[in-house]
This record gives sequence, structure tokens and C-alpha cells, in this order.
Amino acid sequence: MRDRPRRSSFAPPKLESTVVLDLWNTLSLGHLFNPLTFFFLSAHTRGQGRDEGRNRKLVVTMAADNSNVKERFALIKENLAEFLNEEIIKKVVDEGGHPKIYWGTATTGRPHCGYLVPAIKMAQFLAAGCELTVLLADIHGFLDNLKAPLELVMHRAEFYRYTISTLLGAVGVSTEKLKIVLGSSYQKSAEYVMDVYKMASIISEHDAKKAGAEIVKQTDNAPLSGLLYPILQVLDEQYLDVDAQFGGVDQRKLFIAAKEWLPKLGYKERAHLMNPMVPGLHGGKMSSSDPDSKIDLLDSPETVAKKIKKAHAAPQVTEDNGLLAFIEYVLLPASGLRGKKEFKVERERDGLETLVYEDIEKIREDYKNDILTPQLIKPAITRDLNALLAPIQEAFKNNKEWQEIAEKAYPPPPKKEKKVKNKGTRYPGGGKAEEKALPVRTNGDAPAEATEAAPSAQ
Amino acid sequence: MRDRPRRSSFAPPKLESTVVLDLWNTLSLGHLFNPLTFFFLSAHTRGQGRDEGRNRKLVVTMAADNSNVKERFALIKENLAEFLNEEIIKKVVDEGGHPKIYWGTATTGRPHCGYLVPAIKMAQFLAAGCELTVLLADIHGFLDNLKAPLELVMHRAEFYRYTISTLLGAVGVSTEKLKIVLGSSYQKSAEYVMDVYKMASIISEHDAKKAGAEIVKQTDNAPLSGLLYPILQVLDEQYLDVDAQFGGVDQRKLFIAAKEWLPKLGYKERAHLMNPMVPGLHGGKMSSSDPDSKIDLLDSPETVAKKIKKAHAAPQVTEDNGLLAFIEYVLLPASGLRGKKEFKVERERDGLETLVYEDIEKIREDYKNDILTPQLIKPAITRDLNALLAPIQEAFKNNKEWQEIAEKAYPPPPKKEKKVKNKGTRYPGGGKAEEKALPVRTNGDAPAEATEAAPSAQ
Repeated sequence: MRDRPRRSSFAPPKLESTVVLDLWNTLSLGHLFNPLTFFFLSAHTRGQGRDEGRNRKLVVTMAADNSNVKERFALIKENLAEFLNEEIIKKVVDEGGHPKIYWGTATTGRPHCGYLVPAIKMAQFLAAGCELTVLLADIHGFLDNLKAPLELVMHRAEFYRYTISTLLGAVGVSTEKLKIVLGSSYQKSAEYVMDVYKMASIISEHDAKKAGAEIVKQTDNAPLSGLLYPILQVLDEQYLDVDAQFGGVDQRKLFIAAKEWLPKLGYKERAHLMNPMVPGLHGGKMSSSDPDSKIDLLDSPETVAKKIKKAHAAPQVTEDNGLLAFIEYVLLPASGLRGKKEFKVERERDGLETLVYEDIEKIREDYKNDILTPQLIKPAITRDLNALLAPIQEAFKNNKEWQEIAEKAYPPPPKKEKKVKNKGTRYPGGGKAEEKALPVRTNGDAPAEATEAAPSAQ
Repeated sequence: MRDRPRRSSFAPPKLESTVVLDLWNTLSLGHLFNPLTFFFLSAHTRGQGRDEGRNRKLVVTMAADNSNVKERFALIKENLAEFLNEEIIKKVVDEGGHPKIYWGTATTGRPHCGYLVPAIKMAQFLAAGCELTVLLADIHGFLDNLKAPLELVMHRAEFYRYTISTLLGAVGVSTEKLKIVLGSSYQKSAEYVMDVYKMASIISEHDAKKAGAEIVKQTDNAPLSGLLYPILQVLDEQYLDVDAQFGGVDQRKLFIAAKEWLPKLGYKERAHLMNPMVPGLHGGKMSSSDPDSKIDLLDSPETVAKKIKKAHAAPQVTEDNGLLAFIEYVLLPASGLRGKKEFKVERERDGLETLVYEDIEKIREDYKNDILTPQLIKPAITRDLNALLAPIQEAFKNNKEWQEIAEKAYPPPPKKEKKVKNKGTRYPGGGKAEEKALPVRTNGDAPAEATEAAPSAQ
């Protein structure tokens, strides 16, 4: 067996205050190939319409001993679509250890609310006493977007680091067992590269293509990297020294390949945990080309409300319903991590009592029967999502360095120069056009507004 | 522009005596993909039936100045099938400089006489004042044959180094401008690897496949490395810091790709020199699976005679005639490097005068007219080839280290254990079977005999 690769892991920045942040989070996703690089986070701040979070520091991380084996394993499994070789993880839990799980993301676009789905799952891993490694695949970020200078990609990785660290640091779960690793810290090492070469010489083109079938463009004109990346992603399991990889169920073929390929190089087979594919809030994948379909983590409460209001959701139809999915995979488990699973729908306006749900089944049933209408559910989601986002935005506002990185990582789009007809300087306003064209940038929401123009993983 | 990569080039071992060796040589070949890893060498020792070589030290390397621009360039071009962007090389020659040319070979099989064709061409490059870099693609050698331990591959690279160094050191041309570089000395560097990743992300699967169409197996089950290697071979031009790459005309598609791909990473386009594909002595590719079709560089004069005697050659048929090709691409240019192109055919047995040829056209004409028969031509080729091989074998016999490396690089095949029926120790000879099974190994020709069992590039 090889030694562990050298690794430059970031220490999450210390939170400046110890005030209780009910915000919890993590980030998760199917990595490199999945254009929908979900970010996760879920937050609930004190005094935002909830009683149970107030003045109470929640330490939801379960002790890694034999006293709660069943609960820990159940939390790891919760909401998963599939779990391959779960015996590998079960054994570690049974022995009171800390299963090591990794999730990777290419640092291309900008983390948005789509990340919440895998993120909540990762928060559960941490809460269940797992060691979580987040791989920031910066090399892939760079390669996916060769036109962007390497510097920009480094700034984005840094932005991801701040976001993830803040999210996880602010959540009720302990981040003591969180590592954030840059792909470039080991994917260029001689040892790793020899393994890439080796793997490429024993894996057929056919198998590499199959492994990436659902996550890599399958055209003849697709870049060769699409066949190379599956090899890297599989080797990462070895080089990050984990027991399991986590991702979306769209990664299934790649995960199956990982099970087969690693033993060919003499490395051990890993477990694989898969989240279901969840429709976006707008009933489909969140598109980065449509600004309104994507909610940025730094969007203002008003913007969030506006975007959710626009979300498509047919009354009584529960299939492919992004709103219900968001409740099921983000809001309910988030509240569960805080101690009690519940989702409240206020009906004051109609003079009716507040509905309080503890499981998704009842919510679905009421939605089908039109007791829960889109009009009722949207404000409830808006309220909870804004509560999740608030501490992130608070941390961002109080962190000058993060703000500076945001500006560098997602510079405002070059202002389209208005074709000022040359009417001479005597024309009213003449000579001031340039001044006007200077991008105006404020803190807070402003950087978020620049997002849509930035190149993205989508 | 980047700095030159770190490079561990071998200094050719000093020849132990300064006796004049008319042997000249080099090695050459279309590298990685070409299963027919030609080795080159051409030799003529003192007093082996030739007068003109006696007691005369030939310094055939042309001065790199403006006095002989035409001759130098003509020698570089001689016998080439194609020369892309020859203006790049011409400019360097015109300015009295030393064009830098590289040729690569995977260190898989064992150098045999098929290498003579590209080798003679490389000797001409050196003679014309070029800087020649021989890339020993050890990583590829290892990957092509993953079952062999890395140690074996390192021994083979070392064996290649000895062979090439001896060949080139013994030849009339100066080896001052010869570099021998191990692929592993830079192909695992972070800088190189980033370029591999980058290239893979801008080159399509289709284009990578096209580039390797004639040199990589084109089955769906072929390993992914077949698509990756063209990228490495192209990048080698940059990292070896050369003006041109040399190879067989089967490399053409890859060379065309190199012209297109390097500028995409901001690197300059190189020239490409191509040898024609020459039939083997047996009228086809020399096969490593048929021992008799391959002449090892260390085969005894008797073995060489026997193998050439067996060579297939129809009288009067000049097309795809391996014997004539060998004269055209090895023996004639070899004598040319020694000062005078000629090929002699003795006819003493028939009471006729010796035929002396100065060009291949006249040889072909006489062969067509049956003046030159296979029976006449074979002894002449045997004589000249043995003269080429003699100094190599002499050097090998006098170099204990080389012999040791040969044993390690090409260990004798494990003796097939005779199934000794257990008749008890009282059976005559019982208990001695093991002793008999020990491989007997002598120096000199012995290692050559073990060649056929060794894994080869074929």
C-alpha cells in the first residue's frame, strides 16, 4: 500500500463569535462532470420565527462510540437513493470509528442553492461522526474553462473554501472532522500521475466511456478529458484515503467503475453513497443561463422571495415537484439535524391555524388534496430558505477578505460599451460616458448579481 | 515560454580504446506505437574484407558552418519519405546552426536489426551536424507491459542506453551532440502533467483517435492509453526542446496532429522527418514471435548467416523485397557515411569478377534481370551485416556491466518444469531433476537466445 499523499488541507477559518448559529450546512455533489454543482447549506438563525432554536447551542454530532451505532448508521443512510458496499461503512460505525467520506466539486461556477441537497446530506455525515473530505477540483475547474486564467480559478477555489468553511463552521454539526482539499495539491504529483498512466493502460476506451456515460458529453467531438476524468475521480478515492465516495445517483456508473478499477491497481474497493436526483426549485435542473432559476447563496431575502414566487409548481401534482423535493431533501432534514423534523405552513391570512408537518408523506398527501397549495407553500419555503441563508450573508458581510475574493473570483461582466455617437464634447453629458460605464460594486448582494455573467459549470 | 524541463541525460560511456571502429550507428524509430522498434546500427570493422576502412579514422561529421549548407541539408533529407516544414530545419542549417531532432522508442522488447533503418538515418543527422535526442520512453515501456515489474523495465532502459551509446560511440560520426533522455525524467513533472491535462481538455476523442490511427490499435477494447499517448508524444517535442521529430511514415497522422496541437498551448510548431516503411529482411515486418525472422544485434555471425539464408526473396521481384530494401536503407548509406557509397557482390565461385554498385537503381536493374540472384546477394548482405554487428558484440564482450544488465533486462525464460513422475528417489536420476532444470547461461550469444521469450513491443 502507498503512503498517504501529501495534502494541503485548509483549516476552516475560526468563527469570530460563539453566538449560536442554527445554520448548518455542508456541501456536496457529483463533482467534475455534473454541471449542476449543488452547494448545500441549510441555516436557521435565532429569532427568525422559530422558538426551538433560540438560545440553545445544538451539538448534533453523535458520539462515535458503540452507544448509538444504529442511530449513526441510520443518519448516514437517510434519504439516500443507493448505498453500494454499505458493509464497509457499517463495519467502521460498528467499531465506533469515523467513516471517511469524500465529495468533490469542480470550482467552476458559483455555489448556489442547488448545492443544498447534497450539502444537507454531508451535514448528516458530519453529525453521524464521519470524517468528511471536500475535494475542490481546481484543476478540473481550470480545464473546463481554459479561457479563464489560472488566477481566476484559484480565486474561485478560495471563494469555495470560504463559502464551505463558513457554511460548515456555522452549522450545528462539528466541523472538526472536515477537511477541504485542493485537487492541485496532489493531482500533479509523480505518484498520482503514474497511477493515471497505469490506469489508462488497463482501462479500455469503452469502459472509460461507459463510466462517464451519464456525466460526460457523449459526442465524438467531446474532449478527451471526458474519458480521462473518470480515471482521476476514481483515483481520488485512493489518494484522499477515504472509505467511501458520495455523489448524485448520476454518478452510479462511475462509482461501479471505481469498484472494479481500484483493485486492478492493488487498491481497496470503496463504498459509494448516492443521493437521488432532485428537481430544482423550478421543477427542473437549475440553469445558470436563466438567472431567475438559480438562487445564489448571497441573494437578498427579497430576491429569494421573488425567485421562489416565480417557481413553477402545478397544484396537486407531486411528481417532479421542486418545491416538495426541496422540503424533503433540504428543509425537513435540516430541522431534523436541529433536533426535530418539522415544516410549518402559516395560514393566518386565511384565518386558519398553522399546519405543522413532521414527514414528507403527509405533506404530499395534503398537496395532492389541495390543502397545501403552491400559494401556501411558497412563503413557507421562502421563510425557511432565507433563514438558512441569513448567517452566511452575515458572515460574508463581516468578512472583508471573503468579499475581496468574491470580487476577484467573479468579476463584474465587462460593461457593454454604449455606442456613444461622437457628437463632440459639447454634447450634453459628452465626455462622461466612460465614468458612467465604470461598474458600481457594493458589498452584500452586489456580487451575487454579477454571477450570471460569470462562466459556470453548467 | 517555459523553461527547459529538468532532464537526466546519460553521458554515453567512454569507449575503452580509441582503435578505429568503422562501426557507425544510432538508433531510431517511430516510438511508442510502432511495434517494429527498429534499432539502427551499421558497422564496418577494420580488416573485414574491405580495404577502404583500414587504419583510417573517419570523421564524417560535417562542420556546422556556412561552407557546406547544401551538403548538410541534402544528407538530412536523404532517403526520407517525407519532410514536413523543412524550412524550419533549413533555416537553422543556413545559419550554420545545429538542428535539434528527436526520435523516441519505448523500451519494451530488445533492440534488433530492424532498428538499422531509422538508425542509419540518425547517424546521417549526426553526420550532418544535428543535435540528436533519443528518448527512451521507459514509462511507456512499463505501461505496455504492466505485468513486468518496474525494475525490469529500468534494466531494459539501461540495456538500451548501453546499446545506443555503444553504437553511436563506435560509429564514425561524432556523438558529442547525442543526448539520451529517459521519459520518466520529465513525463511525471507537474508542469508536463498540467500540459497533458490541458491538451486532453482541448483535443477531441475523435482527433486523438485519428492521430493514432496507424499506430494504435483501433478496437473499442483498446486501452485508453492509446488515446493518451499521442498527447504525450506531441508534448515531448516541446519538453525535449527540439526543432523536429523523426519517425517512420506510419507516424504521419500523429505528426500532423503535433503541428496542429502544440500551437493550441502556445508552443511552436515543429518540423517532421519521416522514413519510409521498409520491409524486413524477410519481406515483411520482422516478427518477434518468429525467432528466425528477427536478427538480434548480438546474434553470432553463423546465426546471422542462417537467418539471412532463410529470408524469403523471389528472384527478379524487386517490389517489397526486404533484401534490396536493406541494401538501400542500411548498407549503401552506411558505406556512404564512411566516405563512399558502394555495395560489392563477390562471384568468385562462378569464376566471375566482383560486382561493385554505387546506387540502388543499378542493383534493382540487375536483380530484375537476374544478374543479381538471391543466392548471390544473400552472402554479400551477410558479410556486411556481420561487419556492422562485430564491433557491437566486441564491446558487449568486453563490458561486464552491460552483460549483467542484459541478464537482468532479459532474464532467461523460466524453464518449463518437466513433470517428473514421483517414482521415488530410487528411480535412476531421481532427485537430480531440479539441478538439470537450472538455466545454463553463458555470455556472448547466450542472452540473445533468450530474447524471443522476453515480452516485446511487437
